Amino acid sequence: MSGAHDAVEIIMAKRDRGELDDAQIDWVVDAYTRGDVADEQMSALAMAILLNGMSRREISRWTDAMIASGERMDFSALSRPTADKHSTGGVGDKITLPLAPLVAACGVAVPQLSGRGLGHTGGTLDKLEAIPGWRAGLSNDEMMAQLESVGAVICAAGDGLAPADKKLYALRDVTGTVEAVPLIASSIMSKKIAEGTGALVLDVKVGTGAFMKDVDTARELAETMVGLGTDAGVRTVALLTDMSTPLGHAAGNAVEVAESVEVLAGGGPDDVVELTLALAREMLAGAGRDDVDPADKLADGSAMDTWKAMIAAQGGDPDAELPTARHTHEVPAPASGVLTRLDAMAVGMAAWRLGAGRARKEDPVQAGAGVVWHARPGDDVTEGEPLFTLHTDDEARFERALASLAGGFDIGEASDLDTTPLVIDRVAP
Amino acid sequence: MSGAHDAVEIIMAKRDRGELDDAQIDWVVDAYTRGDVADEQMSALAMAILLNGMSRREISRWTDAMIASGERMDFSALSRPTADKHSTGGVGDKITLPLAPLVAACGVAVPQLSGRGLGHTGGTLDKLEAIPGWRAGLSNDEMMAQLESVGAVICAAGDGLAPADKKLYALRDVTGTVEAVPLIASSIMSKKIAEGTGALVLDVKVGTGAFMKDVDTARELAETMVGLGTDAGVRTVALLTDMSTPLGHAAGNAVEVAESVEVLAGGGPDDVVELTLALAREMLAGAGRDDVDPADKLADGSAMDTWKAMIAAQGGDPDAELPTARHTHEVPAPASGVLTRLDAMAVGMAAWRLGAGRARKEDPVQAGAGVVWHARPGDDVTEGEPLFTLHTDDEARFERALASLAGGFDIGEASDLDTTPLVIDRVAP
Repeated sequence: MSGAHDAVEIIMAKRDRGELDDAQIDWVVDAYTRGDVADEQMSALAMAILLNGMSRREISRWTDAMIASGERMDFSALSRPTADKHSTGGVGDKITLPLAPLVAACGVAVPQLSGRGLGHTGGTLDKLEAIPGWRAGLSNDEMMAQLESVGAVICAAGDGLAPADKKLYALRDVTGTVEAVPLIASSIMSKKIAEGTGALVLDVKVGTGAFMKDVDTARELAETMVGLGTDAGVRTVALLTDMSTPLGHAAGNAVEVAESVEVLAGGGPDDVVELTLALAREMLAGAGRDDVDPADKLADGSAMDTWKAMIAAQGGDPDAELPTARHTHEVPAPASGVLTRLDAMAVGMAAWRLGAGRARKEDPVQAGAGVVWHARPGDDVTEGEPLFTLHTDDEARFERALASLAGGFDIGEASDLDTTPLVIDRVAP
Repeated sequence: MSGAHDAVEIIMAKRDRGELDDAQIDWVVDAYTRGDVADEQMSALAMAILLNGMSRREISRWTDAMIASGERMDFSALSRPTADKHSTGGVGDKITLPLAPLVAACGVAVPQLSGRGLGHTGGTLDKLEAIPGWRAGLSNDEMMAQLESVGAVICAAGDGLAPADKKLYALRDVTGTVEAVPLIASSIMSKKIAEGTGALVLDVKVGTGAFMKDVDTARELAETMVGLGTDAGVRTVALLTDMSTPLGHAAGNAVEVAESVEVLAGGGPDDVVELTLALAREMLAGAGRDDVDPADKLADGSAMDTWKAMIAAQGGDPDAELPTARHTHEVPAPASGVLTRLDAMAVGMAAWRLGAGRARKEDPVQAGAGVVWHARPGDDVTEGEPLFTLHTDDEARFERALASLAGGFDIGEASDLDTTPLVIDRVAP
């Protein structure tokens, strides 16, 4: 039977709520990677998976097939245990920047393969590229050497890692099939398992600024991913964390690097510090190093030393001045009272529209663009005093950014405050 | 906003069970026809439509958008009223061949735009092409002239008619999205409304050999299409007819032409005659000519005269010997008794595998290939006497055809007979 024929049978099986067998999953992922299953066939299958779901066995096999489409990395020769973190994406989520050097300063190697931003959520590589000279591309040998010498590396995933996922992710992005739990879980976990980390902590975001808008869906995703990681021998834990409010005081690229450096210097916003330490403790526990308190490594400057070494090892100048945007615009508070709500999606869209993010993969980002907010929920604000500062190289962008922010915050009384904790839940095997 | 962005929003709206507005439907059908919406986006949308459905308003607008993608024909200058028939496709369904000249002989013009077979169901054009010299392609002017002179034409739809449907149908075929009631209904009705017929009778097949396996789905499709035709000013009626058993005694190309000629000569299998007359009466009623009894036109030879004129007008020799296959194989009855079941799908698959049909659009078909069965449900059979005769140019095809027929019939007692009538129901506005 021809390949095209097999593809249609597989699509129809999932369309009719059937369960795909191992051979069907292996074949369709491999044939898609090779180009024997066409984009229009895979997108129909992705929509059927999104709407009809997949069993745990199907998701596990799909993940294995994506891993098998490329190379697997191996850090077992390192002198230290390894741990990594993955966030499902949020607004102002710069946590990877202080976290990787912090955990490395505690004696655990962090091989962090990151991505670029798309839509309203920022990308770790875009942020680091705001640092003059820093480069995201490393060979596997360079990565291994830096893990041994510095202990932390944040770089772009090579083309050899889960190429099936790379192709499928780009397809899902243009076909309305991003939001499928089986496909999100297998996409994330295929890369993390192929990367070869020993321990993994998942930061599953919930709220207006996240892909997962409700706790139940986020928990389903977290449980699925923890199961996949555990089955593959990776010590995996997930935290469900709030993304109704953006993290810290800044969303953008250089503005988030600056905030991360504040945290590494022992300061920075409370919520960024809290989440960085919570994730660091999970990574250290997964790597068998829960004897170390990461708070000590922020206080004694060793996390900052590792940050500087990590940036320098990838060609960056950690002491260089960060780029700033050509234009700024202040938004005053329209009333006095308590800031009771600051919507992550509104802030993320504003930062995106100012030029911090991209609409298409091939677009450039502005290093200096972004939004800085001068109050967080619970803080007092005074009418006429600056509430937001917008940064962009292109003045024409202010108007649409302001439209995004309109309705994105409330000023009221302290009793109106939402009391959702930052860390909502923990999912372990 | 970019076109690609709009496409994703439309896909996501249908994915999330939303209703598409008129502007979204107009845009996506037009943009797909122009190539601004990619195949992989339309296939994801088609899968979402298949699984989440469409409202009557959405289906109606989608149909209008497909009509608007091309030209509309106009037969109002003809001296006779027009009526057409469409079958959703079955096994041994040669009804169009005797029906079109029969209705024309009753004084109603029949502008029948037909298709080719795909999969286990045969195509009217493939059957007629078994007649030496006959050609399916006519210009609009030739079609109009033949309708005026002969009264009946069976030909291929031109490229100008509903090009959106042509493109979408080919896509659905390879993406497992054929079986969506909104897409089937809008595909059929966009072509029939654009064709400009005054009356239309739909033969909606139900059973193992049809796309619709159960009466409820078939009735839903029939009601949808009758509504679309009525709204567009076409007098439309549907018959739900049984397709658990193949029609007549033959499935293939030349073998079905021969059977059709028997009917036009006043003989032929009872079921083929019954369905031909039932559909003819509906077409005549729709065209305002229910004063004529089509049975008279079979008896007096005028339907046969119109058939010969119709074939000759398209270059065919109605008196030429029909092609035969190089090889035949007899299948004897394995027992004596009453034939209680003859499965339409089993017979259709066997005919397909013998070379009567095609697996891909570009494949040729064999004019002489097919299956002839010597008994119909209710007939007595005798062990060792021929039950089937298989015809093909390629002996290697017998084995897989025999595999299709195995289990496709039962021999038992008269009390085991299924009593489903040939015409199951009638759906009118």
